[in-house]
Amino acid sequence: MLTEVLTTIDASRDQNLRDLIDFLKIPSVSTNPDHADDCRLCANFLASHLTKLGLRAEILPTGGHPVVLAKNTHLPTRPTVLVYGHYDVQPPEPLDQWLSPPFEPAVRDGAIFARGTCDDKGQVWCHVAALAAWQQQGGPPVNLTLLFEGEEEIGSRNLKSFVQKYKDQLTADVAVISDTNQFTRGLPAITYGLRGLVYMELALTGPSHDLHSGLYGGAVPNPANILCQILASLHNPDGSVNIPNFYDDVLPISPEERDAWKQLPWDESAFCKELGIPHGNGEAGYTSIERKWARPTLDINGLTAGYQGKGAKTVIPSLATAKVSMRLVPNQDPLKIAAAFEKAVRAKLPDNCKLETSLHSSSGPVLTPITTPAMQAAVKATQTGFNTQQVALMREGGSIPVVLLLKQQLNLDTLMVGFGLDDDRIHSPNEKFELDALHHGTRTCAALYHELSTLKP
Amino acid sequence: MLTEVLTTIDASRDQNLRDLIDFLKIPSVSTNPDHADDCRLCANFLASHLTKLGLRAEILPTGGHPVVLAKNTHLPTRPTVLVYGHYDVQPPEPLDQWLSPPFEPAVRDGAIFARGTCDDKGQVWCHVAALAAWQQQGGPPVNLTLLFEGEEEIGSRNLKSFVQKYKDQLTADVAVISDTNQFTRGLPAITYGLRGLVYMELALTGPSHDLHSGLYGGAVPNPANILCQILASLHNPDGSVNIPNFYDDVLPISPEERDAWKQLPWDESAFCKELGIPHGNGEAGYTSIERKWARPTLDINGLTAGYQGKGAKTVIPSLATAKVSMRLVPNQDPLKIAAAFEKAVRAKLPDNCKLETSLHSSSGPVLTPITTPAMQAAVKATQTGFNTQQVALMREGGSIPVVLLLKQQLNLDTLMVGFGLDDDRIHSPNEKFELDALHHGTRTCAALYHELSTLKP
Repeated sequence: MLTEVLTTIDASRDQNLRDLIDFLKIPSVSTNPDHADDCRLCANFLASHLTKLGLRAEILPTGGHPVVLAKNTHLPTRPTVLVYGHYDVQPPEPLDQWLSPPFEPAVRDGAIFARGTCDDKGQVWCHVAALAAWQQQGGPPVNLTLLFEGEEEIGSRNLKSFVQKYKDQLTADVAVISDTNQFTRGLPAITYGLRGLVYMELALTGPSHDLHSGLYGGAVPNPANILCQILASLHNPDGSVNIPNFYDDVLPISPEERDAWKQLPWDESAFCKELGIPHGNGEAGYTSIERKWARPTLDINGLTAGYQGKGAKTVIPSLATAKVSMRLVPNQDPLKIAAAFEKAVRAKLPDNCKLETSLHSSSGPVLTPITTPAMQAAVKATQTGFNTQQVALMREGGSIPVVLLLKQQLNLDTLMVGFGLDDDRIHSPNEKFELDALHHGTRTCAALYHELSTLKP
Repeated sequence: MLTEVLTTIDASRDQNLRDLIDFLKIPSVSTNPDHADDCRLCANFLASHLTKLGLRAEILPTGGHPVVLAKNTHLPTRPTVLVYGHYDVQPPEPLDQWLSPPFEPAVRDGAIFARGTCDDKGQVWCHVAALAAWQQQGGPPVNLTLLFEGEEEIGSRNLKSFVQKYKDQLTADVAVISDTNQFTRGLPAITYGLRGLVYMELALTGPSHDLHSGLYGGAVPNPANILCQILASLHNPDGSVNIPNFYDDVLPISPEERDAWKQLPWDESAFCKELGIPHGNGEAGYTSIERKWARPTLDINGLTAGYQGKGAKTVIPSLATAKVSMRLVPNQDPLKIAAAFEKAVRAKLPDNCKLETSLHSSSGPVLTPITTPAMQAAVKATQTGFNTQQVALMREGGSIPVVLLLKQQLNLDTLMVGFGLDDDRIHSPNEKFELDALHHGTRTCAALYHELSTLKP
């Protein structure tokens, strides 16, 4: 049966692309209230397309943009797969940098260009098109629950309550998310690890108002000076993070992972050239891949103090602030790390300054076991989908909070089977999704439903 | 003769205030091109007032706002005193914080409130009113050259070329500037030392574009992290500046100065309370006065990197910048210090970041000998003007570049005899000048011309 499905997909490349183009034309920018109607329109488009394919599709309200929930005809003896994706997109600005308008999809150089092509409408469409091909053969061999939300780009802020409310409808054996990348062009990948995040803000106040640096300088606490001293103290000379207990729960990279990652076709000089730096740097004793995927970090994401305009102003600022985020790895606990950070910062605080801290966000790291039958199914499906034996098992440095949400709320492990490429420019002008990625991704999704059908429910 | 002059001044308080009010009404904001005509009007007002008093007053063009230059009838056997002041003012914004409009002078609580009252129109007026009183007695007993510029608040950018062009007309034996403060209310002061300034900007670039902190964090140089490390390295734990050779030329505070300053009625707890801090801090082993007046500093005046809006953005910035100024003391050389700073910063620079530095401004420190006949004349005049034996000899932490300019271009030592108070809120809303300061200042100027008349020309 899978053979026929794949043949159908191979014959439907043009039709699948045309359907995706209609989906891409809808400017479902979730962060902009002016596009609230477009988000609703986009949900309608998706639900009505799925209904046409023969699924039971619903548009369910949330506190924000709606969720599309769809299911195929239930097969009592088969496992259930929850497919998560999102139909909302990032804002397209700056518009003048787009070679073709962001909501007028254009095909060139073997790719489709528009906002949301890779993140995540194109990858959602891999599932929709795979399902269409299966429906022609009487339906997929698993129970599929498709959950497509409209608020991923604004932090999935209503997803937790949605999942709690519709828990019964979301029961499944495994989850699948297609919102990650291939390792590189031609080497598809399964992502089995994500870093977590703790994002803090520090606001340090010295004098109660800005002062003239000539009249007062040298005799009063300058919060900008002190903030730099505090922040500088948070790293050791070897590049590691200098916060007591920070590494207590860090799972070391296993020798097997190290070996496997060394086999990957990583081009360090191309990596640096793309970033305009002669060489990378970071924690001593680790490669760039290891630093990005499996070691925790502390990065300043924003600094603000004093005069920021052109020229000079001789001011001692009253206030200096920093946004600081830490990427976490298994098995670090975000709240423990946030507390350790705050303790380390306060330990360096002079007693004539005031410090306010706030936690902007936190999410835990993810590590999915790679030896499970589900993971083996994903590898096999990817081999089939991409016509290759080479499938990378990788981790990623970013965070996908919904993976953790599905684990915590529904006790689901997630297979991250994504088809993007590092140069797809998600969140930037001229976002693209390669036509081969769309095609191979659709084949992979179709094969994945097949491979998962033998999973013990 | 001085007795008659002082009697005249005592009898003319109201008239002097009325004249000053007309001067204050003109919004001579030098930085705002919309007020260029007002600056011209203000120069005209001043020149025509001085002409009415019987002086030869000219309005001389510069590359910017004009200079008013005025002289009394020349007395061949008498010394010449160059009086410098400025008729331009700071912008009045924020307007909504003024209790009375900034250019509608209002008298309340024994002070006159308007923009420029203390800085520097009111202090200029002390000289104008003193001169008016002397003119009633046939003119002052010295040759006065009054130089009032209109660009002090924008860096006196045309003053050097003006002084060079009119050098012959500006020859003098001593200079007087009234643009400083009393030590405190009731304790008038002569300022004999100023700190210098080196103001630098650092622009540190890591990756060529902003990066996602999840995807890249830990493997690439973060210029915000590195900038903090560099800046933090510039101080020692004892609060001193950690730049090689920084202290090489620093003139130690003499035991006599230390003793004299300890006699001044300094209220450390009031100083801290006003600033909203439990205690000051700075270089170990020095008092607040010593730190402000006679020790060099390094202060961050501005920090900018990454995301500065509300909330969180997980960005590794490409660029991080800092504005850093150093206050210098005798006998530090600004250009030597700028070079030492740059060398120290570059010594800490990782080889995969790029640093651009720029020098915004520099000026040398000033120390006028306190044992000269001119200084003794200033002390005696202040005693007479304020009816007190107590006159403080003080230094100041800020910089007055024109003092150095007069020294370098005209070889003149400057007597800094000022009448402001620390709480006059110069550059801020509700700037004021106390009516007693105006009166005692006028008396002091009148007495100063008398005391200086015996100076050897």
